[in-house]
Amino acid sequence: MTTNKRVLLKSRPKGWVTEADFTLDEAPIPQAGEGQLLVRNHWLSLDPYMRGRMNDTKSYAAKAELGEVMVGGTVGEVLESHDPAFKAGDFVVGSLGWQEYGAGPAKTFRKIDAKAAPAQAYLGVVGMPGVTAWVGLLTIGEPKPGETVVVSAASGAVGSVVGQIAKLKGAHAVGIAGGPEKCRYVTDELGFDACVDYKAPDFVAKLEAATPKGIDVYFENVGGEVLDAVSRRFNPFARMPLCGLVSQYNETNPMGLRNLHTILTNRVKLQGFIVSDRLELWPPALKDLTEWVSSGKIKYRESIAQGIFNAPKAFIGMLKGENFGKQLVKLT
Amino acid sequence: MTTNKRVLLKSRPKGWVTEADFTLDEAPIPQAGEGQLLVRNHWLSLDPYMRGRMNDTKSYAAKAELGEVMVGGTVGEVLESHDPAFKAGDFVVGSLGWQEYGAGPAKTFRKIDAKAAPAQAYLGVVGMPGVTAWVGLLTIGEPKPGETVVVSAASGAVGSVVGQIAKLKGAHAVGIAGGPEKCRYVTDELGFDACVDYKAPDFVAKLEAATPKGIDVYFENVGGEVLDAVSRRFNPFARMPLCGLVSQYNETNPMGLRNLHTILTNRVKLQGFIVSDRLELWPPALKDLTEWVSSGKIKYRESIAQGIFNAPKAFIGMLKGENFGKQLVKLT
Repeated sequence: MTTNKRVLLKSRPKGWVTEADFTLDEAPIPQAGEGQLLVRNHWLSLDPYMRGRMNDTKSYAAKAELGEVMVGGTVGEVLESHDPAFKAGDFVVGSLGWQEYGAGPAKTFRKIDAKAAPAQAYLGVVGMPGVTAWVGLLTIGEPKPGETVVVSAASGAVGSVVGQIAKLKGAHAVGIAGGPEKCRYVTDELGFDACVDYKAPDFVAKLEAATPKGIDVYFENVGGEVLDAVSRRFNPFARMPLCGLVSQYNETNPMGLRNLHTILTNRVKLQGFIVSDRLELWPPALKDLTEWVSSGKIKYRESIAQGIFNAPKAFIGMLKGENFGKQLVKLT
Repeated sequence: MTTNKRVLLKSRPKGWVTEADFTLDEAPIPQAGEGQLLVRNHWLSLDPYMRGRMNDTKSYAAKAELGEVMVGGTVGEVLESHDPAFKAGDFVVGSLGWQEYGAGPAKTFRKIDAKAAPAQAYLGVVGMPGVTAWVGLLTIGEPKPGETVVVSAASGAVGSVVGQIAKLKGAHAVGIAGGPEKCRYVTDELGFDACVDYKAPDFVAKLEAATPKGIDVYFENVGGEVLDAVSRRFNPFARMPLCGLVSQYNETNPMGLRNLHTILTNRVKLQGFIVSDRLELWPPALKDLTEWVSSGKIKYRESIAQGIFNAPKAFIGMLKGENFGKQLVKLT
């Protein structure tokens, strides 16, 4: 009989996550109750925000519980439906976590058109990360034509979309990424105007050269030393959507914003945001993104790990920047 | 013959300003050219922003020049007018700097009604500091009834107005000030709901007790350790108008924002602002402020130094928090 392979949260990491913080587990396939769906997951999404859910701190979202299935977005096929809006064979996006099968209330799923885009894209460019880019850049960053937009983690699921939207809006797009290979991808394939390697010894000088007119919008995914360098290039009235601080999530003594003075003297707006706060913006964002992807205006790349038991390793690799584009786990 | 006593900027301080950074000087009374006014200053305003003007760095406003009269707002009486809109005897607000007499283009002055409020109030509560409080609190802070508004330097020219406007808007107003005397003034005379002494050893615990529902708006004037403590109390969607960082202006290695993480997880909006960017808001702000002051809804206090040659000492004292309310120099 088939079982449900799952990954449970075993311990809350102090500092860097390790594979020992997870338990690999097998359990019976769950049953769908009244009003519920039973889904076989085909894809699991791995995202930096998950690191925060592992902590025992007050945050914007419920933390993952010890001994429970680790949280995460999933795409899968409905095996059994107890809701008239869904039927077996439908493909749905949900949040079933790090497991092969899951059941939950029908209203926690969204049906997708697996012909319009590959199913896993609904976890990336036409899903949460894509909408995150759209919301942060267009409602907080508000780039004007000719302005300079900088985005960190530029080859990642969110950053890659940020820079491409910036270009579509007529801005000058500069990415920051780790290593020459990622930087080449960002400029040559994604079409950014420039990309700066934060691991290079002359990073600060290169950033300066890539932003000769200063920086008007900084879409922040990483924090730390990269933020420190960028903050010294802000123009008056710059905007900084704060989406993530992945370089600091595993630090026991995280680095903050050293150059607070520039926020004052340049009248910068720095605003944290979480895409799930802005549910009203998902439909227009997904409409734009679907159109841009299908017309080839927005490109994306995926890093795919195979099998649910490889999720912890892939997750840790992503936090270290070892992935390239959207990090996924293929479960079928 | 009468001369013009002036204070010139002698050197750009590294770290703390000292009196040796200024030159006391006497010069002939200047002459008013075509389209200009000659004004005898009655009052000079001393404000924290002036510390920034002493530096040789790019900032929102022109820096003070070495060997020139130190910059500053003034109120005085027109002695001679070469513009039909003004006549001798008019009282005007201008920016003539640290000197007894000055001349400048008529359009750089604004006529005031010295009967509606004392002349020096146009440098304080119905002037730049009052408008600063109004603009930062109402356009960035946007307090809602019942929300908790915290303001640092609460007994100062800006902070005292921030808390009183917050109360008028139905918010819970909590001040932070240095020492029990200032705190008593903030609660007993200005009517804040609470005031916390940042010099007290149990400051953090007292701040926590004074903000049992967390903090929704933080109007920041000081930075440093005070900001560190406040940032740990932010509620989701808190707003932080950044008006000043006076605790850090004389630090060669200024402290930034340690707790950047809260900006992300609580989706805080942090925005620097300068009141001179928002000239369109001065008329409505001054209308409100004049009405509130004349009806007794907003109270204020002044610290007055006598004579222009005492300006450097009074300025340094203000940066150290030795003043109480609006710091002025009386020149007549």
